[in-house]
Amino acid sequence: MFFETVRSEGLAHQSYIVGAGGRAAVIDPRRDCGIYLRRAVAHGAVITHIFETHRNEDYVTGSAELARRTGATVYHGAATPFAFGSPARHGDRFQVGPLEIVALETPGHTDESLSFALYEPSVPGRPVMVFSGDALFAGSVGRVDLAGDDPVANAHRLHDSLHRVLLPLGDGTIVCPAHGSGSVCGPSISDLPFTTIGIERRSNPYLRLGREEFVERKAGERGYRAPYFREMERVNLVGSPAPPDPCTLRRLSPGDLDGMQVVDIRSPTAFAAGHVPGSINIWREGLPLFIGWTLDYDRPIALVDDFNQELHLAAAHFVRLGFDNLTGFLDGGFMAWLREARPVGRIETWTVQDLFSRLDGVTVLDVRDIANRKERGAIPGSMHVYAGEVAARIDEVPHDRPVAVHCDVGFKGSLAASLLAGRRENIRVANVLGGFAAWTAAGLPVERV
Amino acid sequence: MFFETVRSEGLAHQSYIVGAGGRAAVIDPRRDCGIYLRRAVAHGAVITHIFETHRNEDYVTGSAELARRTGATVYHGAATPFAFGSPARHGDRFQVGPLEIVALETPGHTDESLSFALYEPSVPGRPVMVFSGDALFAGSVGRVDLAGDDPVANAHRLHDSLHRVLLPLGDGTIVCPAHGSGSVCGPSISDLPFTTIGIERRSNPYLRLGREEFVERKAGERGYRAPYFREMERVNLVGSPAPPDPCTLRRLSPGDLDGMQVVDIRSPTAFAAGHVPGSINIWREGLPLFIGWTLDYDRPIALVDDFNQELHLAAAHFVRLGFDNLTGFLDGGFMAWLREARPVGRIETWTVQDLFSRLDGVTVLDVRDIANRKERGAIPGSMHVYAGEVAARIDEVPHDRPVAVHCDVGFKGSLAASLLAGRRENIRVANVLGGFAAWTAAGLPVERV
Amino acid sequence: MFFETVRSEGLAHQSYIVGAGGRAAVIDPRRDCGIYLRRAVAHGAVITHIFETHRNEDYVTGSAELARRTGATVYHGAATPFAFGSPARHGDRFQVGPLEIVALETPGHTDESLSFALYEPSVPGRPVMVFSGDALFAGSVGRVDLAGDDPVANAHRLHDSLHRVLLPLGDGTIVCPAHGSGSVCGPSISDLPFTTIGIERRSNPYLRLGREEFVERKAGERGYRAPYFREMERVNLVGSPAPPDPCTLRRLSPGDLDGMQVVDIRSPTAFAAGHVPGSINIWREGLPLFIGWTLDYDRPIALVDDFNQELHLAAAHFVRLGFDNLTGFLDGGFMAWLREARPVGRIETWTVQDLFSRLDGVTVLDVRDIANRKERGAIPGSMHVYAGEVAARIDEVPHDRPVAVHCDVGFKGSLAASLLAGRRENIRVANVLGGFAAWTAAGLPVERV
Amino acid sequence: MFFETVRSEGLAHQSYIVGAGGRAAVIDPRRDCGIYLRRAVAHGAVITHIFETHRNEDYVTGSAELARRTGATVYHGAATPFAFGSPARHGDRFQVGPLEIVALETPGHTDESLSFALYEPSVPGRPVMVFSGDALFAGSVGRVDLAGDDPVANAHRLHDSLHRVLLPLGDGTIVCPAHGSGSVCGPSISDLPFTTIGIERRSNPYLRLGREEFVERKAGERGYRAPYFREMERVNLVGSPAPPDPCTLRRLSPGDLDGMQVVDIRSPTAFAAGHVPGSINIWREGLPLFIGWTLDYDRPIALVDDFNQELHLAAAHFVRLGFDNLTGFLDGGFMAWLREARPVGRIETWTVQDLFSRLDGVTVLDVRDIANRKERGAIPGSMHVYAGEVAARIDEVPHDRPVAVHCDVGFKGSLAASLLAGRRENIRVANVLGGFAAWTAAGLPVERV
Repeated sequence: MFFETVRSEGLAHQSYIVGAGGRAAVIDPRRDCGIYLRRAVAHGAVITHIFETHRNEDYVTGSAELARRTGATVYHGAATPFAFGSPARHGDRFQVGPLEIVALETPGHTDESLSFALYEPSVPGRPVMVFSGDALFAGSVGRVDLAGDDPVANAHRLHDSLHRVLLPLGDGTIVCPAHGSGSVCGPSISDLPFTTIGIERRSNPYLRLGREEFVERKAGERGYRAPYFREMERVNLVGSPAPPDPCTLRRLSPGDLDGMQVVDIRSPTAFAAGHVPGSINIWREGLPLFIGWTLDYDRPIALVDDFNQELHLAAAHFVRLGFDNLTGFLDGGFMAWLREARPVGRIETWTVQDLFSRLDGVTVLDVRDIANRKERGAIPGSMHVYAGEVAARIDEVPHDRPVAVHCDVGFKGSLAASLLAGRRENIRVANVLGGFAAWTAAGLPVERV
Repeated sequence: MFFETVRSEGLAHQSYIVGAGGRAAVIDPRRDCGIYLRRAVAHGAVITHIFETHRNEDYVTGSAELARRTGATVYHGAATPFAFGSPARHGDRFQVGPLEIVALETPGHTDESLSFALYEPSVPGRPVMVFSGDALFAGSVGRVDLAGDDPVANAHRLHDSLHRVLLPLGDGTIVCPAHGSGSVCGPSISDLPFTTIGIERRSNPYLRLGREEFVERKAGERGYRAPYFREMERVNLVGSPAPPDPCTLRRLSPGDLDGMQVVDIRSPTAFAAGHVPGSINIWREGLPLFIGWTLDYDRPIALVDDFNQELHLAAAHFVRLGFDNLTGFLDGGFMAWLREARPVGRIETWTVQDLFSRLDGVTVLDVRDIANRKERGAIPGSMHVYAGEVAARIDEVPHDRPVAVHCDVGFKGSLAASLLAGRRENIRVANVLGGFAAWTAAGLPVERV
Repeated sequence: MFFETVRSEGLAHQSYIVGAGGRAAVIDPRRDCGIYLRRAVAHGAVITHIFETHRNEDYVTGSAELARRTGATVYHGAATPFAFGSPARHGDRFQVGPLEIVALETPGHTDESLSFALYEPSVPGRPVMVFSGDALFAGSVGRVDLAGDDPVANAHRLHDSLHRVLLPLGDGTIVCPAHGSGSVCGPSISDLPFTTIGIERRSNPYLRLGREEFVERKAGERGYRAPYFREMERVNLVGSPAPPDPCTLRRLSPGDLDGMQVVDIRSPTAFAAGHVPGSINIWREGLPLFIGWTLDYDRPIALVDDFNQELHLAAAHFVRLGFDNLTGFLDGGFMAWLREARPVGRIETWTVQDLFSRLDGVTVLDVRDIANRKERGAIPGSMHVYAGEVAARIDEVPHDRPVAVHCDVGFKGSLAASLLAGRRENIRVANVLGGFAAWTAAGLPVERV
Repeated sequence: MFFETVRSEGLAHQSYIVGAGGRAAVIDPRRDCGIYLRRAVAHGAVITHIFETHRNEDYVTGSAELARRTGATVYHGAATPFAFGSPARHGDRFQVGPLEIVALETPGHTDESLSFALYEPSVPGRPVMVFSGDALFAGSVGRVDLAGDDPVANAHRLHDSLHRVLLPLGDGTIVCPAHGSGSVCGPSISDLPFTTIGIERRSNPYLRLGREEFVERKAGERGYRAPYFREMERVNLVGSPAPPDPCTLRRLSPGDLDGMQVVDIRSPTAFAAGHVPGSINIWREGLPLFIGWTLDYDRPIALVDDFNQELHLAAAHFVRLGFDNLTGFLDGGFMAWLREARPVGRIETWTVQDLFSRLDGVTVLDVRDIANRKERGAIPGSMHVYAGEVAARIDEVPHDRPVAVHCDVGFKGSLAASLLAGRRENIRVANVLGGFAAWTAAGLPVERV
């Protein structure tokens, strides 16, 4: 038996390939799915089954593409009418070489959510693994505010899925969830690469709540919901088209950027001291989390970097979120813009000491996740708009005074500052270097909110 | 937290790298240890700790080399006087970034055997993983006949280690053993990539035995013990030298092979129809299992292949067993031998039907593992010498009649036949194609032994 | 400026990627054309031009596929009506960044053959390189017996192309031909990776002939012409379809091989001592040269190897020759056939001493290239059929006596023997190990032919 | 025959591996020499000869290390007393498989400079290639101001080497120099990947000069000479030690940077808006050119990047220049500095329009190569110090007024600005974005100098 996890950073998406006896199954493949083919070849296996734990909302699933490339069958939950693949119902059994995989209906996160229990012949009677999708995470459970319009009903169903389906599998079963730490699909997921029923039963805070407490807490949680989720849900229902070839990104000249959505993937300081006017600053690791908040699917997208390093990695994030309108990148990097003496955008960078000394005359805009603000406190007098929502709520930010944007350390702050500087006229914007981390490291006053 | 298994095929050796917060630990590294450095870099970590679960007998450990390359400290069990590294005792705690690793003395397989429990901050009170060395495997437990001279005492100690130290960690703890399926270090290890205490408690046959039954069974088991084990034990006590550079294998001409130990890594049919006289036929996957039975550490070793494919993989097996006297390979492959019109060795290949029709006039030599012979039966009238022991027991094979060698499917049979043909004069030897598998597939008579 | 050669072994095909200033051109791309995209990315360039020196007959060109993946334009000679791309005529100039590439009509090998001269700005007035297609090779020139039906006229035109177009470019121009040593597209090509006009002017034997001598010699040369050439010419005229995905080769069980064309890619000795009855033995390096002589484009093709090593390399040869009917490979290798006790084919292997001692009672079949036979002599009394032609001329081989097949060292001999054994009933066939090389190494008598 | 060029970017160093018949020679290997071993293996060859064209001054040669790893013999010019390897004299012949390599003494650049002519058996009488070291480049010839103290004598000897040794090899010989475009070892080398005697005879401006003109021109040329050259000359005479293992770069915390030489490899804008006070800004591609001007060999060196991408590539530049005191990099990137609220250095960035409007009140410091300044003109009133020399001549820069530094586009300007800001107190420094390229693109006035 072989088993490998394939992670997509940023999304904290976890997919799996598992097999034995020359056959393999893939659970929740991502769209750039060549990696499963290569791993199957390395293990001497062919992929015969593709299992989807649910219709994902935060990325384009690769099931349709992987099925096209392998001839494998895709299985999804029966409760949603997918335009491709086959429905699987509670108790359905699938043979993958000597392994047996059993579908378990575990609704709550979505109606059609499935888990998949894997049985291995040397271990009779109990599954050795369960692929738990977005039902059970390491240290957390799935959100119930994304599917349908009744979080309370969803929470009840999730409680049943956890306590009547998953926990009874036994403490010794290894749990392989669809997301790891950092995902938006569940609060405070721990960074264990995988876990067990036993570990979760003892340490997962949600599993120690009674039904009423659980429903109240889950139904009351409200996570952020990026605007692109709707597009993902649509695409994943019908099956995504083949991904674009990453080798064909175009090399753009400065003039080509006119009318494009320009994404500057450099660091906050690089952006601050000079950028293409109107460009949005999303640092590399932030791409999977923020392009879905800030870009549209229609206008072509161009990347700007300093040295155009590893752009295939940056481009993969666009592929995974379905932004096939990514067109190319500025050939020669930002210096190519400068050498033509084109207009240069700038935003100020302030240290926390700078900010502290000017606190009276400025609007402080905190763009952290609201949970961080609640947990760690805030800069006195600051207002809050989450970085992802700045684009939509830009008119709420007063522009009569300078705006000092801050986040945890400075990346999201620069994203927000770039949106303010690019879309709001006559505004003076600064990004606070080091963000709230530096503010507290410097011993400056914190306000509880 | 990141976690990866590094497997060495053939030996079925499993080592692990685990880390978080920019720090990493390696458990039971192999000698060609660059892979741990590369994985650590990929995960943004430096290796600070190296843990050895025991003084291995079946391969050269890479601890000394990895310590030289990283500056990390090596920890072994305190009960054996290693010439390098530091002793670790029951309860010793090691901090690897946010992870805590606790040494557990689990003797039985060897006196100084340790397991290492890994605690992660999000899971208070119970380890998420235990690196169980050769104490507990998936579906099996370690051998007690290798260390010292009292298997009964070893079995008692192993029973204690299992029931008083490992099982109490709790069903939910993931178990990462030092060997997987196919290893000679435990009988019938299953091929789960890793397991849990819960899975083992329910399905491991050894864990369901009472103490007396356990001791009786374990103390009665006798596994094969390759002659090179003694060298491994010596080397691992003092720390192995840096491994040779695989890029410097020499290209040998036919004349260079004089006086060398020639290992023909081709298939049984390739060997049968033509080979360098005196060469030993060990197929590629068989190298880690059989070079230690058949080669010595003194005379230079040469490889013969047809197309010299992926020889670096073949060479790695020699490195891992300390055969630094591997010198090179026949440049141009076996055809280079033929084109010079040099003498050609041959052995016959018989189908099972051929053998059945000649059964009366031949000696049938079964070279399978004795356990297979007992479990599946034998060709009527066959004698048995395990393939690994043929070299030492060659005089036991009668040479008055043709000898038909067979194993499971034909690889080990060809190894044994090559030893007989090369080291015994005036003997007519045939290898049975398809071995016992073909014999039973053809519906030929089987004798229980 | 960057410049790289991409070689396809076996075909001895040489293609080139050259570029500067972020732009690149590819000359004579092969069908598995991802390598050009990767090289272009590595050099920071996009491929804008694809040049074909002629409609190749020995492999599927990748121009159509590369154009689909890059948007580049394909240019061919105007004298042939291609169904894709654009015609280029003598003197047409193409700008690739700062480089200028000029088309030169150099017919002879085919009507529409072009060469391409490359000018670099720092070297005014003379090309630094010329891509000479199949007009001029290192040490040789193209064949004139493949295109049309008038080799004499072709030879005249080739003489003009060489003396009026290519040599006048000047001694200092680097020559990059479409083939290297071992190609069937020209006799005795040297193995220089590239050459210069000056080197060729001094040392190429064809360039020192007067027109009449040249025409007489070239028109008199008859090379082998594999049956698949016709299919290549057809495909290359219309543009080949996208190549199949090498990751999707199927794993076949022994029963799946029924009715397939089975190609055994092992060595002659491996094949001799056991093979799937009816299979053809073409060793790995021989695939690009002999599959086009022996396989058809209709029935599915299966590979048999011992250890299934690097099958993607073997599969690439099928892709390059358009054999998209390659279906899969025997899972588990030839041993999987044996373990089911299926019928086993065998052919004898004889040393040259064996053959010499039996010379009177056998038919000796020499399957070398006829040029080798003429140059080096022959085994007395041997008959000759080129290995590639054995399939078509199989009835010419007498079967009343044992047939001892030999070639240079043994590979082609095994191919021919496998055809005889598989397609001719009641024939006893042996392959001579070491072939003619061993015959002469052993000092056995040679007959001039 | 196989032939490959191995380039080291930045240094524009070109080394070669060439071989046939299972043997290979390497010409002018670099210190990170694993690449030659891998290429030799890929071509089925062992490295038997290492040729040095001269004792290099701009990088650490890998000859000693490659010899240690392969057992090959190193050959250098006899005129210098090397502490390792063997001397080669004019006309000495070396057999590398079927290839013959002949040493040619071609002094001028250094006393012991050699070229190596390569003869291939199919081309009788003339070399197919010559490895011309620093004697003859594409479009240029070697410097004569580096070795000894008599440039006039050197120029005479170089003229002889060119006209009496190299040009007589014949127009058709391919020329493989030790440097390409961008090297400091010759002025205005073209970017041809290789060239021919014929191309050079026609287009190389130095080859068309008579002896007197040649000597006058060459002896009058003064190139920059980085301070580390002296260390290279010393190391290359005795043979360099084994290079450090790039996997062992340390991850440093902000506090670890105290007392280290901190090299910030980010872009000028990234550096401008925030950096570690006292750090030097050398962008990635500039490392091989400028670390030898600005760093010492004693104090440990730390790298600062934003995202710590591909640091192994950056580290290789230090290895090649012998800076084995490179210790590690700031873990977490520059953001790790910021989040601790440590002091932040900044320099201003001005557009060319900004500069033009302030021209009267500032010192404009042009840090371009003096040749660029002479060729393209200068900003009116600007002073000139080459970027490499700023560290040594820092006191010449007046600090009574703001200093606006500019170079070609902005990289070297930021380097110079970082030195001024870090080593000069009470100075206000700005870097001009886009440099002289933007100045002219904006149509601003230029002064001839």
